[in-house]
Amino acid sequence: MTTPFANFQYEIYLAGLAGTVPELPTDLTQLEAHAQAAMTPEAFGYVAGGAGSEDTMRANLAAFRRWRIVPRMLRDVGERNLATTVLGTALPAPVLLAPVGVLSIVHAEAELAVARAAAGLGVPLVLSTAASTTLEDVAAAMGDTPRWFQLYWPKDADVTASLLARAEAAGYGAVVVTLDTWLLGWRPRDLRTAYLPFLRAEGIANYLSDPAFRAGLAAPPEEDRNAAIGHFLGMFSDPTVTWDSLAALRERTRLPIVLKGILHPDDARRAIDAGVDAVLVSNHGGRQVDGAVAALDALPRVVAAVDDGLPVLFDSGVRSGADVAKALALGARAVLLGRPYVYGLALAGEVGVRHVLRCLLAELDLTMALSGRTSVAQLNAELLVPAEDVSR
Amino acid sequence: MTTPFANFQYEIYLAGLAGTVPELPTDLTQLEAHAQAAMTPEAFGYVAGGAGSEDTMRANLAAFRRWRIVPRMLRDVGERNLATTVLGTALPAPVLLAPVGVLSIVHAEAELAVARAAAGLGVPLVLSTAASTTLEDVAAAMGDTPRWFQLYWPKDADVTASLLARAEAAGYGAVVVTLDTWLLGWRPRDLRTAYLPFLRAEGIANYLSDPAFRAGLAAPPEEDRNAAIGHFLGMFSDPTVTWDSLAALRERTRLPIVLKGILHPDDARRAIDAGVDAVLVSNHGGRQVDGAVAALDALPRVVAAVDDGLPVLFDSGVRSGADVAKALALGARAVLLGRPYVYGLALAGEVGVRHVLRCLLAELDLTMALSGRTSVAQLNAELLVPAEDVSR
Amino acid sequence: MTTPFANFQYEIYLAGLAGTVPELPTDLTQLEAHAQAAMTPEAFGYVAGGAGSEDTMRANLAAFRRWRIVPRMLRDVGERNLATTVLGTALPAPVLLAPVGVLSIVHAEAELAVARAAAGLGVPLVLSTAASTTLEDVAAAMGDTPRWFQLYWPKDADVTASLLARAEAAGYGAVVVTLDTWLLGWRPRDLRTAYLPFLRAEGIANYLSDPAFRAGLAAPPEEDRNAAIGHFLGMFSDPTVTWDSLAALRERTRLPIVLKGILHPDDARRAIDAGVDAVLVSNHGGRQVDGAVAALDALPRVVAAVDDGLPVLFDSGVRSGADVAKALALGARAVLLGRPYVYGLALAGEVGVRHVLRCLLAELDLTMALSGRTSVAQLNAELLVPAEDVSR
Amino acid sequence: MTTPFANFQYEIYLAGLAGTVPELPTDLTQLEAHAQAAMTPEAFGYVAGGAGSEDTMRANLAAFRRWRIVPRMLRDVGERNLATTVLGTALPAPVLLAPVGVLSIVHAEAELAVARAAAGLGVPLVLSTAASTTLEDVAAAMGDTPRWFQLYWPKDADVTASLLARAEAAGYGAVVVTLDTWLLGWRPRDLRTAYLPFLRAEGIANYLSDPAFRAGLAAPPEEDRNAAIGHFLGMFSDPTVTWDSLAALRERTRLPIVLKGILHPDDARRAIDAGVDAVLVSNHGGRQVDGAVAALDALPRVVAAVDDGLPVLFDSGVRSGADVAKALALGARAVLLGRPYVYGLALAGEVGVRHVLRCLLAELDLTMALSGRTSVAQLNAELLVPAEDVSR
Repeated sequence: MTTPFANFQYEIYLAGLAGTVPELPTDLTQLEAHAQAAMTPEAFGYVAGGAGSEDTMRANLAAFRRWRIVPRMLRDVGERNLATTVLGTALPAPVLLAPVGVLSIVHAEAELAVARAAAGLGVPLVLSTAASTTLEDVAAAMGDTPRWFQLYWPKDADVTASLLARAEAAGYGAVVVTLDTWLLGWRPRDLRTAYLPFLRAEGIANYLSDPAFRAGLAAPPEEDRNAAIGHFLGMFSDPTVTWDSLAALRERTRLPIVLKGILHPDDARRAIDAGVDAVLVSNHGGRQVDGAVAALDALPRVVAAVDDGLPVLFDSGVRSGADVAKALALGARAVLLGRPYVYGLALAGEVGVRHVLRCLLAELDLTMALSGRTSVAQLNAELLVPAEDVSR
Repeated sequence: MTTPFANFQYEIYLAGLAGTVPELPTDLTQLEAHAQAAMTPEAFGYVAGGAGSEDTMRANLAAFRRWRIVPRMLRDVGERNLATTVLGTALPAPVLLAPVGVLSIVHAEAELAVARAAAGLGVPLVLSTAASTTLEDVAAAMGDTPRWFQLYWPKDADVTASLLARAEAAGYGAVVVTLDTWLLGWRPRDLRTAYLPFLRAEGIANYLSDPAFRAGLAAPPEEDRNAAIGHFLGMFSDPTVTWDSLAALRERTRLPIVLKGILHPDDARRAIDAGVDAVLVSNHGGRQVDGAVAALDALPRVVAAVDDGLPVLFDSGVRSGADVAKALALGARAVLLGRPYVYGLALAGEVGVRHVLRCLLAELDLTMALSGRTSVAQLNAELLVPAEDVSR
Repeated sequence: MTTPFANFQYEIYLAGLAGTVPELPTDLTQLEAHAQAAMTPEAFGYVAGGAGSEDTMRANLAAFRRWRIVPRMLRDVGERNLATTVLGTALPAPVLLAPVGVLSIVHAEAELAVARAAAGLGVPLVLSTAASTTLEDVAAAMGDTPRWFQLYWPKDADVTASLLARAEAAGYGAVVVTLDTWLLGWRPRDLRTAYLPFLRAEGIANYLSDPAFRAGLAAPPEEDRNAAIGHFLGMFSDPTVTWDSLAALRERTRLPIVLKGILHPDDARRAIDAGVDAVLVSNHGGRQVDGAVAALDALPRVVAAVDDGLPVLFDSGVRSGADVAKALALGARAVLLGRPYVYGLALAGEVGVRHVLRCLLAELDLTMALSGRTSVAQLNAELLVPAEDVSR
Repeated sequence: MTTPFANFQYEIYLAGLAGTVPELPTDLTQLEAHAQAAMTPEAFGYVAGGAGSEDTMRANLAAFRRWRIVPRMLRDVGERNLATTVLGTALPAPVLLAPVGVLSIVHAEAELAVARAAAGLGVPLVLSTAASTTLEDVAAAMGDTPRWFQLYWPKDADVTASLLARAEAAGYGAVVVTLDTWLLGWRPRDLRTAYLPFLRAEGIANYLSDPAFRAGLAAPPEEDRNAAIGHFLGMFSDPTVTWDSLAALRERTRLPIVLKGILHPDDARRAIDAGVDAVLVSNHGGRQVDGAVAALDALPRVVAAVDDGLPVLFDSGVRSGADVAKALALGARAVLLGRPYVYGLALAGEVGVRHVLRCLLAELDLTMALSGRTSVAQLNAELLVPAEDVSR
């Protein structure tokens, strides 16, 4: 056993012998259907839903089907090493947990359960600005395990500075700036029930606990909660931000900056010019622009554009270890996992998140081993052929 | 908020806080299923149905899925402007309401409800010749809001002249000549119930109120309705009309002329030669020729053929703001919305039409903003990539 | 109204006004579902079924979806002419009824009902060797309407000669030699119920009535039916027949010879060399070789190969007037309609066959008119574009 | 009748006349649905399931749909010969039974029933190392019929040598070394029930009866079964095996060696260099690497790479005679049939396996005959065209 992720399947079979059979699905594409029963309709709609007709959400998944792995045989795969390093952060596997806001709507232990599960496996969490737990509490729960902080860039410079300072102080290793959510997308599942958790103060813990934010309030949020929510809504995001604005952010933090939401090669090139440290190819899981390009289809174009000038990360559509392998083969340095771990959280709290991660990483380990690869560096373009290429 | 269409999603969420949750779908692709329950089977079949096996109707929708939006990041999108001008008509957004006949079968207030909803948002209505309300009554309901008149070119020159004169007098700003319906298509849903509303005098209000038409009757329609219907049926449409016939029409009105139903590039070139003012790429929503090319597939070929010689409009398959953006990116100056607003009418009258328009335009505004575009002029070829291009 | 097929839709609407609404489907793609309830499970399986997994049967239909009609506007289509001529046979429209055996399993009046319906519209019937009615009785029922005779080439030269002589005497205008059924295909629907109607003497009327066949029997079939069936089975078809054998057939009849079942361009070229008069591109409706090329996909290759050296006919997959137009545009001189008329027969006998034909031809007339074509000669390559061509 | 496989369809129809109608499906694509009811949920999941989301399992089947047979006409197909020779083994048809382990979970007679059915038709069985019957008992049941032995290469050299020696002694004609299962794939259907039959000593009959294996045990398996299972699990497979290791295997047996699981052309070339005797293109029926290339898509690339240097065999996705013909046309010398015969076993034991084989081979015989081919050598590249080639 070369990593904590190897041979999980044998553990399950042996547990079965002892009468302990796992109740959580091991095919992560079936997680959503299982999780629905464990969630309120509003929370399920919020997590599972996408923008508009959800065409991009479906396209994200379909794009993975258009690439096929060609395994190689008779290579010594007795020892595999899934480890990699991104922006100075050592990862046990090329996977991070994506920022997802307001996990309190999914499970009472919310981000703390996620943080503990991630820490248990050494997998970094990218904590959302819109978490329902403060970044300090999450940091405490993670101990030595690396974490990054995702930033919805507030309109208020003081709050921005305060959030960044807190993230630095709490040991977050990078800041992931989300570029695609200056306005909330058109999300019919939420619109149907008019469900926006932020309006109920869920997901603004980082604001309520922030000195700069509190300084802008006439009364403490404990006394006038609605005013605090209103103040938050007014500063949540600034659609006038441009590439020039990045310089200010660059000066305001010593942390590496990751730009999340890059889909166009020209934007990737601009990111290099802007002096950021990485780009993250993502369409926000199909939650923002319905009709947007599948994230995986955008990935190789972005990778070609940056031409090793920056590490390229990836999210939007990862549902299996094979998906991780494909994204890496197309040039991603690491991927972020989103909805699946949230479903694990909904189903079984910390245990569920851990289960989902172990399934994903065990399947990645097997995909590598059975394809004749022993390190993530070997997950390169030679791993894949386009589907249906033969008869064309 | 830069337009009346921006940020509608926040309004809905806030309304939800106040306990007022919208009952109408906000994913317009789900409108049809909702509307079916609110309509008679005959009316639903008439509106929802298409020609033959409805293959072209399905192809119209599928064609949009083959183009993907590539959003750009970090552009200042704080202010967007959806306005445009077509044939001298200023539009608040690149959308008009398509001509749909006999709306009395859908809702008691019929075209008047549509006219009021359109006027409330400043969106032009293209009134059908076959409306169940006279063009004068619709004009009165619209006030200062622009409107166009759609013409099913009658065989009788006097009636043609009279209709055009009335449209001019009532302030209609253009005449849209439908070219693809000289004969009624083969529509199995209607044939099954032998449902042709015109046979019941619905949809011939413009004829019954027309002096030239009445002059051709032996008795006033109030006295011999069946004779009036028969007279209407005999003159409804003239399949012998050719490009040469257009010259006569051109002389008969001072209004700009739009040719509706252009699908072939050569016909678009002939339209320029014929001196008309615009072409409208359309296959009548898949209601005329089953097996016809998807309208969106025809669009870029027509646009290339006219080469800026004429504005190109588009209908047939638009179901979302993303669809509007795609059609514009492929060269349409504006699009016409058909079935969705009729379903809105069926569900909630004027309120329903208004809801559908606001959803569509809010989604368009968001699609623009989140794609880094601030004006409709920026919805050009750079917005899109073909789907599945990467792995081929 | 330019043909007996034009404007059928208006007749139906007017009949509806009079309270007479048609009960038969007018979307012929829905005929099969309707007909199932009117047929025994065995007969339905026999007609609806195909070879193996029925993959080719499905491919036949799907191939039509890959071509799209591009209508032309503003041409005078007031008068259309669907007539054409094939092998000296004048057809009111480019459609014949395909040979289908043993129609007695579908309706008591069997081929006679079909013959009367066909004759009523002037549409030729290609009578199957395996009809349950003698070719003389069918000829009598058709009067002056043209008919052709389909030949399953018996192993017995005398019977072959006798059948051909009878067909000539009864006024059949061509002989259609089926090349793809020397052995019966693997048909799971029939194998499940072990249903082979010939074993019950259904479909061998032409043999039982044949003097050369009867001469080979020890006792008349009226006395020993099983022996007659056995004798039939032994001579039904000869898999050793080759191109050389055609010379003998060519000498044995003065009728034009059509080779049915050509799918490969080289076979089409050999057909020219062999001196036959036409080829019929067909995969037997997907009933013989599962996995075979869709007939419509084979059509343009065969047309290119014969290069006007022979007329090319087509069957396998035609379900609508649009399908007829597409096959003609791809080079077919005329098409044969199969299963749909059998379903019409099952549903309503002669009336049902007539209904199906009128629907098909009315839709063809409308497809032509609304596409700007007035004659079948205008249904050429310019009518079509490949589907999905734009975004590739 | 030229082979024992010809004209099976007529036998069934005649049996129907006698009142004996087959109850087993003759469309082998429907076998799985029928078999499910005859199996325990665990056994069905084990046989029917694949790796991960089963995407590769579906892709295996879909790949066959992208090739189409173009039948040729008027060739003498009265006599067909399906026979071929592979590695000195004479086959009555280009089909072998694939190695499938632990058939005792499917039917009480397990591999013996399969062996008898195979022997009855002269079709070779490739016996799995993981059979629930010893290789000697299977050999006895097969008599003179050829059989091959599949090897999961144990970590223990003595056991490897012993198994090979036993196979040679029992008349197995080749050894098929499986390369793609050094670790068990991620199989959610089995993980859900923690079902691994080997843990219950099913499927290790060849080990329990092996002197070298028993010599490594502290106590005979009859006394300490769990220790025996543990010992088996520890030596089942060695993921450190490389191309170099093959030399040792090559020296250890005089039997021809087939490498099973080759998917990449470079691995096929290395197989030639390694001096093995054949390669078998396979992705283990989609059971090992989810996301792997469809086996049929890999086949022509491997065939091109070996360039007649080695025979290429094929499995993964064969469900019909047409599939066999397609694989041969793409360069396979013979194919191995897997799941379908296991379903036949589940449904009716030896009779079921025989039925499945007869259906498959009868359909292959018909596919050849009706395509104008009389020998397997004629199943070459000229048989096929890519699907959908015409309109592109």
